[in-house]
Amino acid sequence: MARKTRRIVLAAPAAGLPTRATFRMEEAALAPLGDGAALVRTICCSVDPGVRARLSDGASYAPPLKPGEMIDAFCVGEVIESANPRFAAGDLVALGGGWAEHVVFPGRGYIQKIPHRRLPLSVWIGALGVPGMTAWFGLKRVAALEAGARVLVTSAAGPVGATAGQIAKAMGAARVVGVASGAEKADWLRSAGFDAVVDYRRTDDLGAALAAASDGGYDVLFDNVGNAMIDAALPLMRIGGRIVVSGQVADYNTPAAERPGLRNTAYFIAQRLRMEGLVVFDDLRSFPQAQEELSAMIEAGAVKTREVRYHGLEAAPQAFIDLFTDQSAFGRRIVEIGAEP
Amino acid sequence: MARKTRRIVLAAPAAGLPTRATFRMEEAALAPLGDGAALVRTICCSVDPGVRARLSDGASYAPPLKPGEMIDAFCVGEVIESANPRFAAGDLVALGGGWAEHVVFPGRGYIQKIPHRRLPLSVWIGALGVPGMTAWFGLKRVAALEAGARVLVTSAAGPVGATAGQIAKAMGAARVVGVASGAEKADWLRSAGFDAVVDYRRTDDLGAALAAASDGGYDVLFDNVGNAMIDAALPLMRIGGRIVVSGQVADYNTPAAERPGLRNTAYFIAQRLRMEGLVVFDDLRSFPQAQEELSAMIEAGAVKTREVRYHGLEAAPQAFIDLFTDQSAFGRRIVEIGAEP
Repeated sequence: MARKTRRIVLAAPAAGLPTRATFRMEEAALAPLGDGAALVRTICCSVDPGVRARLSDGASYAPPLKPGEMIDAFCVGEVIESANPRFAAGDLVALGGGWAEHVVFPGRGYIQKIPHRRLPLSVWIGALGVPGMTAWFGLKRVAALEAGARVLVTSAAGPVGATAGQIAKAMGAARVVGVASGAEKADWLRSAGFDAVVDYRRTDDLGAALAAASDGGYDVLFDNVGNAMIDAALPLMRIGGRIVVSGQVADYNTPAAERPGLRNTAYFIAQRLRMEGLVVFDDLRSFPQAQEELSAMIEAGAVKTREVRYHGLEAAPQAFIDLFTDQSAFGRRIVEIGAEP
Repeated sequence: MARKTRRIVLAAPAAGLPTRATFRMEEAALAPLGDGAALVRTICCSVDPGVRARLSDGASYAPPLKPGEMIDAFCVGEVIESANPRFAAGDLVALGGGWAEHVVFPGRGYIQKIPHRRLPLSVWIGALGVPGMTAWFGLKRVAALEAGARVLVTSAAGPVGATAGQIAKAMGAARVVGVASGAEKADWLRSAGFDAVVDYRRTDDLGAALAAASDGGYDVLFDNVGNAMIDAALPLMRIGGRIVVSGQVADYNTPAAERPGLRNTAYFIAQRLRMEGLVVFDDLRSFPQAQEELSAMIEAGAVKTREVRYHGLEAAPQAFIDLFTDQSAFGRRIVEIGAEP
């Protein structure tokens, strides 16, 4: 008897901003468990801006989804059946799954046991999951962050940016400036240790605002936004500055030819800048050590986390659309799907 | 009695392409020699596209020149008077000087003794000078070139590009493709070991031409041209690809706001690309070792050099303008100023 699950799939490729019609709920048979596979009951899942690139053709670290394919997400769940010696029924795991009540881990790909329950389970798809690991390895490996660095973080109230800014302070950065819109985000970011917050919606000269918030420029730009933000920051980068290309949320919905271009590239030579993109799964083997250190920072209150919660699988498409359109709430958007054991 | 020299200075800042009116010849008093200084009689000097950025306001590794200031150049010359214990009259040196019959080394800045005369002296401001060192450290340090790499070099018939492509082959690159225009350059580059040459003037789809010339994409782009070239190559970069921003000859004459923009930046994440700018003087202490190795390659015929010669100081402005406008000749442009001892 084939088991079934409710899941959400791509209905039609998105042109521009995704809408509810981009997605479709269906009941589908679950694949039988091959060797190494595990069946996981989803407790909660994420919505991720990087998934936008898979909803239409274009460059991404993964190929575009076809209509009828499940939307990617990170999930926390409980193993309910296992054909993998590393996992047993009852184990709590975080994995690359999708918007579904049950997901099958196929034997390879991102999965890890959750090593302790001292923090809310959803943190394992947030600050201790891919967003937090992106912040960690973006700063540690790509930016090679040094003590005393002056750091600019864009989309600073998002789960990657908020974690990056706080980690940077914890790693000894001299000054951390965030870019975010609205007084509520700015207040929260200051309470989380950011030294200054630039509201890109309240300036008509972003470069001047970024300069005014800086203390003589920036050694590291941790960018989650895209070309317009990088181009505004390039003239402010100090000699040897590093630009971490972590995400491009402002550009995912725009075809390449229509995106704002980087024009201030003369500073790459003048200031010996280095810009580098990041796919955090390249660092997968180093997750446990990073998670142990970051977990301690969260428990000690040095890194704060913040969530926006949605209830039920059917809420996932709106949670995803809200990533690009909703300024009224901020934090890691978590879709609650099943009960915690 | 103050000694005098003929020299060429900035007459008026250039807007767009420099013209003869950008420059002015004058006779000027030479500064008296302070401690550490040396007076050098110029034998030959270079014209350098990077100097374009100093002829008007904008980002460069050096501030803009003011009217009346001498135009920068690299010079080979003979020390004729020295207040520096490292140099004696009769020494042959390469140094950062200018378009002048005599230049004063002020005690700090780029200068080095020419260690042997087994190669033409002008090579010390060419393949063994700043262009060649830019190629060397761009590949070795910035690109961290590995054996088997597939390398794309733009402005491949210029002194940096031609040296870079040949060094890459000598360092074990599997395939080196050059971008240059015209059959004469292509023939010469093939004779110098380039595996393929793309003529950017004979295609209306540069990206497709670069793809066709590649063997499954490129690990390293060594770019001397600017944004349009990098943007065309970005979709062809392999995972972990490196882009060396060595020069921007197509963009120096254009204000930043009017330059073509980099739009294909999604590939930075998708392919984990790294782009980094280079000012070769950061590597000054490593010049002697690199020059020894590269000198041996040139003497062995593994790296070929090519020059276009101009006669007399007054020819320097035209030689400089030719960098941007003359497609009829190619190679390191050398202005002969004084006799070799």
